[in-house]
Amino acid sequence: MNDSDTQIQEIKDRVLAFAKERDWEQFHSPKNLSMAISAEAAELMEHFLWQGSEASRSDIASGKLRTKVEEELADVFIYAIEFANVAGLDIAAIIEKKMQLNGEKYPVEKAKGRSVKYTEL
Amino acid sequence: MNDSDTQIQEIKDRVLAFAKERDWEQFHSPKNLSMAISAEAAELMEHFLWQGSEASRSDIASGKLRTKVEEELADVFIYAIEFANVAGLDIAAIIEKKMQLNGEKYPVEKAKGRSVKYTEL
Amino acid sequence: MNDSDTQIQEIKDRVLAFAKERDWEQFHSPKNLSMAISAEAAELMEHFLWQGSEASRSDIASGKLRTKVEEELADVFIYAIEFANVAGLDIAAIIEKKMQLNGEKYPVEKAKGRSVKYTEL
Amino acid sequence: MNDSDTQIQEIKDRVLAFAKERDWEQFHSPKNLSMAISAEAAELMEHFLWQGSEASRSDIASGKLRTKVEEELADVFIYAIEFANVAGLDIAAIIEKKMQLNGEKYPVEKAKGRSVKYTEL
Repeated sequence: MNDSDTQIQEIKDRVLAFAKERDWEQFHSPKNLSMAISAEAAELMEHFLWQGSEASRSDIASGKLRTKVEEELADVFIYAIEFANVAGLDIAAIIEKKMQLNGEKYPVEKAKGRSVKYTEL
Repeated sequence: MNDSDTQIQEIKDRVLAFAKERDWEQFHSPKNLSMAISAEAAELMEHFLWQGSEASRSDIASGKLRTKVEEELADVFIYAIEFANVAGLDIAAIIEKKMQLNGEKYPVEKAKGRSVKYTEL
Repeated sequence: MNDSDTQIQEIKDRVLAFAKERDWEQFHSPKNLSMAISAEAAELMEHFLWQGSEASRSDIASGKLRTKVEEELADVFIYAIEFANVAGLDIAAIIEKKMQLNGEKYPVEKAKGRSVKYTEL
Repeated sequence: MNDSDTQIQEIKDRVLAFAKERDWEQFHSPKNLSMAISAEAAELMEHFLWQGSEASRSDIASGKLRTKVEEELADVFIYAIEFANVAGLDIAAIIEKKMQLNGEKYPVEKAKGRSVKYTEL
């Protein structure tokens, strides 16, 4: 599988099947899955705690953190996808909708090259 | 766009284009993006803080939390996808690889119906 | 040391001395410390991912999770205290101020026995 | 109240009284409190998302982020203290114990000026 030939639905189905086979749907409430996404995101973040932004770029580019980072980012995706499964959400649709909202909050002419919150643009 | 007709690469491209147009790649280090994923995951989680797991299921099912949850889950995906863009990771490939690992850690016959960590199976 | 005979300042001093001895103040920016607090909080949370609220109470009461939970809660405190050190904040004062604010947001007569956000009281 | 004349037990008592008055102990399971600590830590972190470490120092020093940061750090402490209340933990004792452990993992002569994990020292 790779990103150019995989539809999102295929991944959703695989993630759901994994949980179903193990009879894990009973544990996969929105509450618990939101905790799991958050916990995995923190594990990803932990690799970059004490270093500067530039060092985080070069450690990724050099492959130094590659394997751990791949595994932890994958876990974030897996739980986020399972949340969408459980909540009956269409991932492509909610992303498209949110990017439209973000585009209105951060119009190119105002937001270009700036990192401030939209309330301060 | 919806999950049955959207390839992952299409979403990656959109998310990247959004950042590029705003000249935001300078802020999108792995370190900063990991913080953003974590912050958005926490916002999603905040909706379920004080309620039980069953209440989180019924609030989602009834549509009560729908709009806020859609937006916050979308933000988690957007930053996780941008992390993959910046780090040059193939999302489908890392998910497939991690699910294989998870399958070895949690074989169906041992893990069925149980929520304990694989080290205690 | 125990809570009945220890002033907050004593703990702040110890945490600061630990960092100074190791020449770690260079890494302890507010940004990095906020990440560390968040990462440790997530580790604490991870113990309770898939269980219900009642099970989390009884696992604590029975001492089952005691040692791990003690260590991870201690880490949350240590980094939060170091944040206060670095930012020059008086912990007792900011807690007192925030509890006053919380008391106004959640007056006893309205908030009693309810877990909703103050905006919905 | 300030850090030089406040014993930890005084703050613990206040935080507990606040919850008791509102009959909130029913919501304050270890699971839920761990989520609350994590959510508040993420709110603190959100102020520093896109800036460098040095900018986070100067924004704190100049007082720019002062009020928001004070409130969010206070919330982290409040929920962490309430966790200790609910779990029957002595905060000073668990911090002292953890700092001893940390001192063994990170002996001054090896850890001085270095930010790597103890496993790599």
